[in-house]
Amino acid sequence: MGAEIQRADAILALPVLEMRDRLASGALSAVELVQACIARIAAREPEVQAWAWFESDHALEQARALDALRVTGRPIGPLHGLPVGLKDIIDTAKMPTENGAEADRGRVPKEDAFVVARLKAAGAVIMGKTVTTELAFMRPSKTRNPHDPAHTAGGSSAGSAAAVAAGMIPLAVGTQTGGSVVRPAAFCGVTGFKPTFGAIPRSGILMQSPSLDTVGVFAADPTGAALLAEVLFGHDPSDADTAPRPFPRLSKTALSRPPVTPDFVFVRPPGWTDAEPETRDALAELVEALGEKVTELDLPGPFEAAARERRRINYAEMARHYFRYARDAAATLGAEVRDAMEEGNAVLARDYLSALDWRPVLNAALGEIFERCDAILCPAAPGPAPRDIETTGDPVFNSLWTFCGLPVVTLPLLTATNGMPMGVQLVGAHGNDARLLRTARWLYEWADR
Amino acid sequence: MGAEIQRADAILALPVLEMRDRLASGALSAVELVQACIARIAAREPEVQAWAWFESDHALEQARALDALRVTGRPIGPLHGLPVGLKDIIDTAKMPTENGAEADRGRVPKEDAFVVARLKAAGAVIMGKTVTTELAFMRPSKTRNPHDPAHTAGGSSAGSAAAVAAGMIPLAVGTQTGGSVVRPAAFCGVTGFKPTFGAIPRSGILMQSPSLDTVGVFAADPTGAALLAEVLFGHDPSDADTAPRPFPRLSKTALSRPPVTPDFVFVRPPGWTDAEPETRDALAELVEALGEKVTELDLPGPFEAAARERRRINYAEMARHYFRYARDAAATLGAEVRDAMEEGNAVLARDYLSALDWRPVLNAALGEIFERCDAILCPAAPGPAPRDIETTGDPVFNSLWTFCGLPVVTLPLLTATNGMPMGVQLVGAHGNDARLLRTARWLYEWADR
Repeated sequence: MGAEIQRADAILALPVLEMRDRLASGALSAVELVQACIARIAAREPEVQAWAWFESDHALEQARALDALRVTGRPIGPLHGLPVGLKDIIDTAKMPTENGAEADRGRVPKEDAFVVARLKAAGAVIMGKTVTTELAFMRPSKTRNPHDPAHTAGGSSAGSAAAVAAGMIPLAVGTQTGGSVVRPAAFCGVTGFKPTFGAIPRSGILMQSPSLDTVGVFAADPTGAALLAEVLFGHDPSDADTAPRPFPRLSKTALSRPPVTPDFVFVRPPGWTDAEPETRDALAELVEALGEKVTELDLPGPFEAAARERRRINYAEMARHYFRYARDAAATLGAEVRDAMEEGNAVLARDYLSALDWRPVLNAALGEIFERCDAILCPAAPGPAPRDIETTGDPVFNSLWTFCGLPVVTLPLLTATNGMPMGVQLVGAHGNDARLLRTARWLYEWADR
Repeated sequence: MGAEIQRADAILALPVLEMRDRLASGALSAVELVQACIARIAAREPEVQAWAWFESDHALEQARALDALRVTGRPIGPLHGLPVGLKDIIDTAKMPTENGAEADRGRVPKEDAFVVARLKAAGAVIMGKTVTTELAFMRPSKTRNPHDPAHTAGGSSAGSAAAVAAGMIPLAVGTQTGGSVVRPAAFCGVTGFKPTFGAIPRSGILMQSPSLDTVGVFAADPTGAALLAEVLFGHDPSDADTAPRPFPRLSKTALSRPPVTPDFVFVRPPGWTDAEPETRDALAELVEALGEKVTELDLPGPFEAAARERRRINYAEMARHYFRYARDAAATLGAEVRDAMEEGNAVLARDYLSALDWRPVLNAALGEIFERCDAILCPAAPGPAPRDIETTGDPVFNSLWTFCGLPVVTLPLLTATNGMPMGVQLVGAHGNDARLLRTARWLYEWADR
């Protein structure tokens, strides 16, 4: 038994690309990998509570089918045999999708979300549904931080981040409307990637704020994130914010060598005064170590307005899109959602429209920064995951980038004095997702020297 | 002198396609055509008042340059030598664009609007700027109906419709947010074409309500409208509602023979009770004459909401986009704009968003109608142009189609007992602009049998 667990641990410790290669060659079977994941889930789930729905048989059945497909010699998908967890606001046919909402208990969608169809076509094993906060908002979920259950795992994609961090699955999908991919990824010590707004279609995913909602991914490292995200990028006519265009080869670019050493601009984002001293110190150390590769910059005054304007859009759209929850199930809703909807209900259309108009203005200003660097560098959160399970933490350093629709990666490069992970956030220019991932991989390997 | 006028009149009476062909062959020079237009303007402008800015030298100069170009044998554009009038909310470099607003008196833009650049590239003569109502809204302009100056020319693209109707120019460009192309075209007895929402980029045009604002065209007949519109269809990254896609060959399709005789559905649109008896009678006669080619239909209940929801979007967006006029020049604004902005200022974001959500719902219902017909047929307005210059008339039969973003053509097929023209409105399926124009041409020629 000990040897089995050892072998399972060794499998789960492999980089995702190595898993993929072994699955493709047959050196590792999908069943073997899924069994390793099942064992890890059995061991860690009681403490971590990352799953909203998980059945080992369901996962094993897919793994068996994939193994059978491979031996026929027919072409296999780019994610062949890789287990993926899905935030429980992503519709899965015949599998519960409860949106973290009391009112959606037992809800089973008829159709797969766009991203789920893509994952299945790519040969992924749909491992199950990971815990989301209530309606992907701020009410803390049951999920605990795998590094220390007394700490929050963040939100709203708490289960996705925690499951990957605990090694239960190599890959997971989440969403970000404020900081719901980057924050839990940073708190749990994994890589989180939120692409450019509109890069991944959201059809079949709970809509909170269509001007902001963005699908993102979790993996141990940036090459894993690139592998998964590449399968999800696309155009879907039913998501008007996506467009038919050539899609970037994220994985290949992420693995390629930057033509020159990347340049960074270290930005103290709005809310910088909220950064904990050890966050500032750790960032200062990193900046110093990077030396000439980094210049520093304070963002001009108007950026202070971004958080307020983003919030206005988020809450107003939420008031519209969660209307039915408030009408039919108000008593079941947590104070977080109710208060935000109350605020959103009072927003005037002209203020909402004016908030939307901030975006191009801020992006124009950021455009100048991106002319001089490959990525903006800043902390992913004010500090490590708070030792408090009654909060999901503060998205203060994420909301500007979500508002601007820019691609963002958080890398687990720093460690707090209490041993908890801290994330370094990299922000790329609009649409430059592939280059951002390449820069992220460069930094990830540079930090690992 | 009499002979000259006769010759000018004969030129101006030519169908646009005939003008184009003669200009291309050299049988007619651009200078000759422009001089004919100038003569007509001199004769009719004191009464009609269609122009916000017009200088004969400016037009003649372009005509001379175009004539010189043609004789070199170099390729000429599809609108070579054709004079076009532009609603005075369309920016023209070095030519005033006053938006019908006191506050914009003497305003001269630095750059041409997208459509102006397209027109110039196509070899059109930019004849001048046609009168718009104040900020393209409902305050009556100075323009009078060319058929009888005691009647309104409609609005807001009053000058464009009147100038074409008076034969001052063969082609003109306008915009429609409610009924501002179709209504004046119908009142003045010309063809008006409002394409599918997003077909023509609006960069450089006064923005009143970006979810509704649509560029449209005026010509004597549908083939002229197709010729002009084809040049304007396109993609402009700075107008996010346009998209890169193959653009329809409007002109060729409009000139082609329908594979089978077109089918129509006669719709009594919301507000039908506002239709004047002679409008109902004239339509009934037309429907009877078309016989088996028409079926009749009443739209279901939810369509009654369209006018209210469209208005909510229009006024809320107007409150946002005309904010500066209200702040800096409130005293100069007419009651129409002020009242609408006051209403728009009070719209809640959630109601605005909910109004936007009506659109796909209504379009889905209309989709079923378009499966059984080539075009919806209905009156363009409740009656002929009111004998009242203190109104621009009622857009009640236009707002639904604008709201739904559908392509619309009005044809001057009917005459009221007082001799004023009345329009027949044809509505096509989303994106089916070319087919709609072909159907419109068929009906236009059928009515002319």
